[in-house]
Amino acid sequence: MSSELGEGNCLAWAARDPSGVLSPYRFNRRKVGSKDVLIKITHCGICHADVGWTRNLSGNVKYPVVPGHEIVGYVKEVGSNVGKFKVGDRAGVGTFVNSCRECEFCKEKLESDCEKGLTLTFDGIDVDGSVTKGGYSSFIVVDESYCFTIPENLPSAVAAPLLCAGITVYSPMMRHKMNQPGKTLGVIGLGGLGHMAVKFGKAFGLKVTVFSTSVSKKDEAINLLGADNFVISSDEQSMKAMTKSLDFIIHTASGNQDFDPYMSLLRNRGVFVLVAFPMEVKFSPRNLNIGSKIFSGSLTGGTEVTQQMIDFCAANKVYPEIELIPINYCNEALERVVKKDVRYRFVIDVENSLM
Amino acid sequence: MSSELGEGNCLAWAARDPSGVLSPYRFNRRKVGSKDVLIKITHCGICHADVGWTRNLSGNVKYPVVPGHEIVGYVKEVGSNVGKFKVGDRAGVGTFVNSCRECEFCKEKLESDCEKGLTLTFDGIDVDGSVTKGGYSSFIVVDESYCFTIPENLPSAVAAPLLCAGITVYSPMMRHKMNQPGKTLGVIGLGGLGHMAVKFGKAFGLKVTVFSTSVSKKDEAINLLGADNFVISSDEQSMKAMTKSLDFIIHTASGNQDFDPYMSLLRNRGVFVLVAFPMEVKFSPRNLNIGSKIFSGSLTGGTEVTQQMIDFCAANKVYPEIELIPINYCNEALERVVKKDVRYRFVIDVENSLM
Repeated sequence: MSSELGEGNCLAWAARDPSGVLSPYRFNRRKVGSKDVLIKITHCGICHADVGWTRNLSGNVKYPVVPGHEIVGYVKEVGSNVGKFKVGDRAGVGTFVNSCRECEFCKEKLESDCEKGLTLTFDGIDVDGSVTKGGYSSFIVVDESYCFTIPENLPSAVAAPLLCAGITVYSPMMRHKMNQPGKTLGVIGLGGLGHMAVKFGKAFGLKVTVFSTSVSKKDEAINLLGADNFVISSDEQSMKAMTKSLDFIIHTASGNQDFDPYMSLLRNRGVFVLVAFPMEVKFSPRNLNIGSKIFSGSLTGGTEVTQQMIDFCAANKVYPEIELIPINYCNEALERVVKKDVRYRFVIDVENSLM
Repeated sequence: MSSELGEGNCLAWAARDPSGVLSPYRFNRRKVGSKDVLIKITHCGICHADVGWTRNLSGNVKYPVVPGHEIVGYVKEVGSNVGKFKVGDRAGVGTFVNSCRECEFCKEKLESDCEKGLTLTFDGIDVDGSVTKGGYSSFIVVDESYCFTIPENLPSAVAAPLLCAGITVYSPMMRHKMNQPGKTLGVIGLGGLGHMAVKFGKAFGLKVTVFSTSVSKKDEAINLLGADNFVISSDEQSMKAMTKSLDFIIHTASGNQDFDPYMSLLRNRGVFVLVAFPMEVKFSPRNLNIGSKIFSGSLTGGTEVTQQMIDFCAANKVYPEIELIPINYCNEALERVVKKDVRYRFVIDVENSLM
């Protein structure tokens, strides 16, 4: 068995080639350094990025790939200089496990914009020179500065998706001051990110409109997620009725989109945030300049805002909608992510299924 | 003579049809209301917008058009409730002469983003129902709230271009906190707006790089305007050498442009400000999202920041480079604006040539 799995102290599921098919795999995690915590993983969310990496969409992935960057578990061991955690605490790890710590962005705790580049939680290069491996695994060793505290009343299974899906929308929402009750928010696309944008919007007291191509999402958007309004984006009349009505828009849909119809829905000085990666961004300068609008990009978030978000979710019971799955379902789950057949995030029950 | 000119208390130059050719014209300005000031115009800048309006590029211009929205002169009469000005003061008028005064943007003195729409200085509808007429004229009557104080040490001729060219770049520079000494600014295009962006950048203590298609502008960019660096935008090697080096970019060029090469010059969390109207904006989401960059539009500025800018220019001797012309040169000047043959702003010597 060990020859099939490889050898080492950590059991995981890994993709070995661009087919992206995952299977059990063993490897060695590095020893716990003085600032490290060893986290026994109980839960790991499945992110769309896991598809891209396991299938080598970038063309330069370092196989085998152990994906997973929405990680929650229990601290099992701490280094001699660890201050934030003790054995038995719950801890989370998101999309990165290190950064340069010296650039102006790292100093401001905006590490996701580190000038020298992040160490990604998987497929990155770790301090010991090894390739980082993610949360589809039994445990992980990470510097405590890049680990998050999980408050007592926040269940681990719902905490996991906050660490990528959650922070990816929460971070730009805070940067652009969307937490102003009474303002209006449009959310384009209703997947893992979009459904969190709706939940944060409602928790901030915003009036939230969901834009989707599929009427099948209307009932859940309104009755499950709490959106105030649902618009089919191809319905020109409904779109026109919303002209200049939105203070903010968050775009979470990766398909190709025409941006002008959405830009015209923004009020003057409105902010459009792109967190998705469509093929291209294209719009008329008139739809930006007239009304002095802002079009902003974003990619995850720094450690400070991430911990703030986790605490906010715990305090306000903002929980992702999840489907808990055993790890041997991960290949099917990734296939369903590709088909957008998720409501709204898969979370792997690592604790009870990886053994 | 009066039959050729029309009749009325105000002498002006107007375009009568889409040929855009201007000729003398008389019309009646409205009476001075209780909050109005009557300004005897001494100087009026020529803006690229004057071309668009006189030639009916929008398709719905109300002829005759008296252009001009960079207006400076002397207060000759004040209404009974005017507080800010007295007869003999110098005053300026920019691109708008009224707004709704009730929306959240007007209340915050961000009137250029008024929700209900501005009253433009020309081709707008005035309080008395007449079509507003601009500064290619002997005098103008404007509510004091939309007039600016010209400090004693700021010459009128150089004050005029501040009221559109100046504020159009200054307003987004302040909004995006570009007045941080030591930061780096790229300026695309070196016309009326671009040359002011360079001057403000240097006054703020920025390191300024000018991007231009024409090497002929290099000497003046550096030796006259004070830019630190000059790059021919078609020179791929020079462009590449600047990758991720700029905190801010201001785009003032209206020709069609490829945005991706410029977006990649921005540092993480950098801000790209568009004040021009190219045919379209198009870039890769990667060049926006990675590094959490901001792409912002802007259109002139509100009354508060406009007065701030005027005072800043007076205090720091930030003067536009101008070519002073008599009003009977205005047709040729507009033609030269079209051909980009301006260094860097025409100002009409209304006082000494319109009579």
